[in-house]
Amino acid sequence: MLRRLLHHARRRRHYSAAASNAGVVPLSTPTFAVFGANTGVGKTLVSAGLSAALLSSPTTSAVGYLKPLQTGYPADSDARFVFTRAPALLRSSSSSSRATRLVASCRTLFPSPAVGAEPVHREGQEIVVRYGGDGPEETKVLACRTVYAWNEPVSPHLAAEREGMTVRDEEVRGSVEQWLVEGVVEEGEEVWKVLETAGGVASPGPSGTLQCDLYRPFRLPAILVGDGRLGGISSTLSAFETLLLRGYDVGAVILEDRALSNDKFLLSYLKNRVRVLVLPQIPDDPSDDLTDWFSESSSVFDLLKDALQSFHSKRIQRLSSMQRKSKDLLWWPFTQHNLVPVDSVTVIDSRCGENFLSFKIKDNTMMLVPQFDACASWWTQGPDSNLQIELARDMGYAAARYGHVMFPENVHEPALRCAELLLEGVGKGWASRVYYSDNGSTAIEIALKMAFRKFSNDHGILMDSEKSFRNTQFKVLALNGSYHGDTLGAMEAQAPSAYTSFLQQPWYSGRGLFLDPPTVYVKNDTCNLSLPKLMKHDQQSSGDTLIQGAGGMHMIDPLFQRVLVNECKNRKIPVIFDEVFTGFWRLGVESASELLGCLPDIACYAKLMTGGIVPLAATLATEEIFESFKSDSKLTALLHGHSYTAHAMGCCAAAKAIQWYRDPSTNSNLDFDRMRLKELWDVALVRQLSSLQNVKRVVSIGTLCAVELETHGSDAGYASLYASSLIQQLRKEDDIYVRPLGNVIYLMCGPCTSRDSCTLQLSKVHRRLCGFN
Amino acid sequence: MLRRLLHHARRRRHYSAAASNAGVVPLSTPTFAVFGANTGVGKTLVSAGLSAALLSSPTTSAVGYLKPLQTGYPADSDARFVFTRAPALLRSSSSSSRATRLVASCRTLFPSPAVGAEPVHREGQEIVVRYGGDGPEETKVLACRTVYAWNEPVSPHLAAEREGMTVRDEEVRGSVEQWLVEGVVEEGEEVWKVLETAGGVASPGPSGTLQCDLYRPFRLPAILVGDGRLGGISSTLSAFETLLLRGYDVGAVILEDRALSNDKFLLSYLKNRVRVLVLPQIPDDPSDDLTDWFSESSSVFDLLKDALQSFHSKRIQRLSSMQRKSKDLLWWPFTQHNLVPVDSVTVIDSRCGENFLSFKIKDNTMMLVPQFDACASWWTQGPDSNLQIELARDMGYAAARYGHVMFPENVHEPALRCAELLLEGVGKGWASRVYYSDNGSTAIEIALKMAFRKFSNDHGILMDSEKSFRNTQFKVLALNGSYHGDTLGAMEAQAPSAYTSFLQQPWYSGRGLFLDPPTVYVKNDTCNLSLPKLMKHDQQSSGDTLIQGAGGMHMIDPLFQRVLVNECKNRKIPVIFDEVFTGFWRLGVESASELLGCLPDIACYAKLMTGGIVPLAATLATEEIFESFKSDSKLTALLHGHSYTAHAMGCCAAAKAIQWYRDPSTNSNLDFDRMRLKELWDVALVRQLSSLQNVKRVVSIGTLCAVELETHGSDAGYASLYASSLIQQLRKEDDIYVRPLGNVIYLMCGPCTSRDSCTLQLSKVHRRLCGFN
Repeated sequence: MLRRLLHHARRRRHYSAAASNAGVVPLSTPTFAVFGANTGVGKTLVSAGLSAALLSSPTTSAVGYLKPLQTGYPADSDARFVFTRAPALLRSSSSSSRATRLVASCRTLFPSPAVGAEPVHREGQEIVVRYGGDGPEETKVLACRTVYAWNEPVSPHLAAEREGMTVRDEEVRGSVEQWLVEGVVEEGEEVWKVLETAGGVASPGPSGTLQCDLYRPFRLPAILVGDGRLGGISSTLSAFETLLLRGYDVGAVILEDRALSNDKFLLSYLKNRVRVLVLPQIPDDPSDDLTDWFSESSSVFDLLKDALQSFHSKRIQRLSSMQRKSKDLLWWPFTQHNLVPVDSVTVIDSRCGENFLSFKIKDNTMMLVPQFDACASWWTQGPDSNLQIELARDMGYAAARYGHVMFPENVHEPALRCAELLLEGVGKGWASRVYYSDNGSTAIEIALKMAFRKFSNDHGILMDSEKSFRNTQFKVLALNGSYHGDTLGAMEAQAPSAYTSFLQQPWYSGRGLFLDPPTVYVKNDTCNLSLPKLMKHDQQSSGDTLIQGAGGMHMIDPLFQRVLVNECKNRKIPVIFDEVFTGFWRLGVESASELLGCLPDIACYAKLMTGGIVPLAATLATEEIFESFKSDSKLTALLHGHSYTAHAMGCCAAAKAIQWYRDPSTNSNLDFDRMRLKELWDVALVRQLSSLQNVKRVVSIGTLCAVELETHGSDAGYASLYASSLIQQLRKEDDIYVRPLGNVIYLMCGPCTSRDSCTLQLSKVHRRLCGFN
Repeated sequence: MLRRLLHHARRRRHYSAAASNAGVVPLSTPTFAVFGANTGVGKTLVSAGLSAALLSSPTTSAVGYLKPLQTGYPADSDARFVFTRAPALLRSSSSSSRATRLVASCRTLFPSPAVGAEPVHREGQEIVVRYGGDGPEETKVLACRTVYAWNEPVSPHLAAEREGMTVRDEEVRGSVEQWLVEGVVEEGEEVWKVLETAGGVASPGPSGTLQCDLYRPFRLPAILVGDGRLGGISSTLSAFETLLLRGYDVGAVILEDRALSNDKFLLSYLKNRVRVLVLPQIPDDPSDDLTDWFSESSSVFDLLKDALQSFHSKRIQRLSSMQRKSKDLLWWPFTQHNLVPVDSVTVIDSRCGENFLSFKIKDNTMMLVPQFDACASWWTQGPDSNLQIELARDMGYAAARYGHVMFPENVHEPALRCAELLLEGVGKGWASRVYYSDNGSTAIEIALKMAFRKFSNDHGILMDSEKSFRNTQFKVLALNGSYHGDTLGAMEAQAPSAYTSFLQQPWYSGRGLFLDPPTVYVKNDTCNLSLPKLMKHDQQSSGDTLIQGAGGMHMIDPLFQRVLVNECKNRKIPVIFDEVFTGFWRLGVESASELLGCLPDIACYAKLMTGGIVPLAATLATEEIFESFKSDSKLTALLHGHSYTAHAMGCCAAAKAIQWYRDPSTNSNLDFDRMRLKELWDVALVRQLSSLQNVKRVVSIGTLCAVELETHGSDAGYASLYASSLIQQLRKEDDIYVRPLGNVIYLMCGPCTSRDSCTLQLSKVHRRLCGFN
């Protein structure tokens, strides 16, 4: 089995882009990525020393070393250095009483044409080293590999440009994916893997993507090789922070001693956070063969090995215990705990763009598996991996610049900027004021308070005596099946349902007149469709606004909504659009009012507004609504606020996300002329899906594609577990994280998700449905 | 006036720690801080070149250059370099037709004893340079200053240790404060200032505090001198991110060209974010006097000057326009907009620990002024400046690692860790489940739903038919004057008040039995007191839990609460503690149940839980409460959730803050044996305050000190503007940001705020009250 580690070398010119949600990270093979605080800090020395320390351990059978990007080749080859050095170290230092036969290999897969013929390295070479005591030989393996190599000793992005061998990120990642799953471990074997990055943490790869971003989808634990030179404290800490800003965990920091005690300072500064180790000074003399240095360093490499082993086992222990602990301590919303077996809990290690990395055990092997987040994490998920990194940086900045600051009578830049963007965007043409709160539900309660006041003023209801109008009963006019949030005030504005039952909320009375909108069954092929009726089964829907399109299914004519809005306006009944779900490109346009063709007096926004990373909501209103609260008394002001109203981080995230979505230079899905998203769901595939026997209808609009399965009788509805086997297959086999929604399966992406990714997910659903009974 | 820039040199051994909230940053004098991506990247060359470019501008009268920390002195003196170089550059390159007399000075204030006698530099030197055309001379000034200087060319923290001259952060900052306000600008003068930091962005200062943290209170816009060498892209970007993680704005990045096109990459990567400029390669030859290099570089320095000028004017323009814009676009909660004149809006530039930096115009001069956030930003503010930086890093990390991920049936590390900490801490001994939501109000609504279900189960209210129990009216038992949030469900649980009036919420009916707790008037000097009755005037109070202590004032006997709780428990009425305000050390203990001496069935937490930076709430419950929702049907599950339930950033912040507060190594206010905060408010000062004629009573407990003023008749109460002149004085003259609260003035700090800071604020209030009519 270990031989596979040695000999596997793809013969193709390049690794192909991942054909599926590849990128599984096996956890049975501890794998670390070596990052540098700078160039020239000795990453390769650390890789070699660590490899030798690992191989000298009686439990380790093999070490795989990968250098995905090598410049200065062949004069410089880090893989060759490890390949020649580690065996030498083992032979010279081994005190092993067991006889060991070490098979070491070194291969370079894709040298740039400028490198010239280097048959030995291109084809690879292998050596066998024997050391240790007598008796039966134990075999160990050291497999070193370079993937892409360029001749000039410059940054890969420059080398790639100058030597004409450019490599796409997908190709580099493909090679890492391949390497990660090679050499599957058998009982009793322990294989370690070390990936050495190029340059410093933020040095560009061949495409210009930074090292820390290039390998981020795997989120390998990092070994940070720090800098012992003058200024090295600064570069080590900055590099450490750059890794944190990409969501990496750092397993150890190791640096050379240069008589400046950088390690002592770092040890104290990083105390309780990460292990810091110091290596003896590396001889300056280039003719020194480093034998003495490695010999002096071997105890440090043993400590490094121990630190990484401890890091790895703690990580595994924690990941393995999380299902049980979460079942014991957490109380999930909307979840019947009795129906969630402990082994069905999804342990989420991290997110990269639209994908979760989930902890799974398959065939007794622990691994992290990327899963497409098809429920968009309760319909909030917006960022692709680029926007996620931008937002991470912005969140760090906003927390450092503001923390949270008091809002009433104050102003800070993120709150103002976000308000400007809202009023220039979704509020354009009607809104003039922004009222911040925490979530869709509070935004709705605030909207209702605004509407009540305006209505009272317009209809002469407000009088001097409080008692007389306690008899006035305010009701809302709303659509049946709509949903506006879980707090009592928002619930009162929705029709009776399982959520509003006495069992759930004894105080609910349903203070509305709930209309059943006329629905139309249209037979045509258009795929721009509305979702309110489909969506009502899950938690939130905000169904009062959208409505358009067709595709052999029910739809609500926007004309109905438009007429309703106009009739209300004629009667001076304030109109609220609940855009919590529909806002910010969810339906392909920034605001669903564009689909409806009319404007509200008040509208509520949340979810995608902050790019889907922190809670924040906004209620927008016209100046007339705002005016109805003005007087000379504080008592007529709108007395509703939450501690974190307009918190800087939320506003900062919203400002970034709103601009990112609507900028064609960052959102390639945007049809800038029409200011709507291009069609994300492949029309042919949607048509194929809808023609399947077991499919009742398919709706695709904006970032959303929903498939309603044919059901009979009690299979439909909220409590149904009808589609659960399909859902389980999609989750387990196809790595699509779908949430059960009665007999509806939906895929939801972000406004910037690539069309290719949408097609990939959709074809998986199609394939699965073809075989679904 | 400019002469003050030249000659001001304090004769004391060191700058003293700031005696008040010093740290004013004048904005009429554009001031930038030069940070390095690394050591040896040419910060001083940039400072010199920029100084010359600025002085060559017809509008600039003077440039002040400050090097707070210099090592390798006197051989190396960056101030001397600028002092000798900039005049030479001006003389050689000046094309000015006007005759100019440049007076340049160079001073070093505090060389370490190891430096030896260096009379010229210690005392300073001055030269006069004349250049330009004929005619009347115009005088310009270049004032260069070193503050602390050590002999060894190592990092300041090492030099300070080795040479025995340690300097505290307050002293370094004191010197910067002093320098910032020197040389006040007169009509027609334009003075620029440049502060050059030591080493890289994260190099330690003499105390070990990193450069980026040391100067953070001033938040000067940064010039980042990047690195043109191999690996320089990485170190430049990492340094840039370190600055962002401290909340700095970077005005420009400038770096040396080393034939690696680092600038091109950075230009593209930082596009739309920051201006990137490139300087010709610096000659390696140490004997080169750089005359040619500076001459080649002068156009780049002119561009740098232009970029900074543009950055500065945009900043000023934005800050000056924010009051007006906020009045036009924002809708503040709890605010009667008619009562907020545009010039009373506080423009908050940033926060550093407990202080805001607010934009003000005093005597026609624009400046940023630190203000102590005495209302703790709606009672949420927790972090000191150290925790704020920690949280910023954690927020960046959590956003990068997770963004937001779906919660139901899932688990991620921050949600689990936070739950563990809650159950080991505030929930210890009673709670076994954590239910996350967004804010105190939603936490209360969830708590009520939990209590209703448990009560229904225990009292056999749940039957098969929904209709029959629509007649059952659930009410809460609560205290008069308490406040639990602004959403309808939470409002229903509080007694009628201005917030619940028909004007505010027509749907409110007050579904409670509201008790007036017996209050006692105790005459003694103890200062541990409860606040619910005082606090009811402002927005949120969460007043049902605390209650203890005395000091010549009303108090609610904890015995009453305890008896009430026990009576409820005997009757199987679930007991909810609203700890939104009282939780997490607000009252000196982690949970107010320690003050009450009894435990709840359900408790709600928010505000300080996340360290006061992002919204997150938790409702804790006993296993019995949790069990009452279990069945085999999803319909009996608790169907309440928000999109961002258990969002990773909130949970991550909470986990950090909870641990930080209760760890004596990070919170020096903690009395670890008793697990409560030491007394933060000086007892003698509190007693002095309470004995003032115009003070009715003073209450200090935990992080809170409230002073109730004597009032007569209608002066008291919510709508009162009684104390407003006092509040205005405290805000404007004393730089304490207090919020009006009827006739109560309160100071609130964080759990880690130093006792010195509390005493400082309290003595200001005392001084002001002595003179208050």
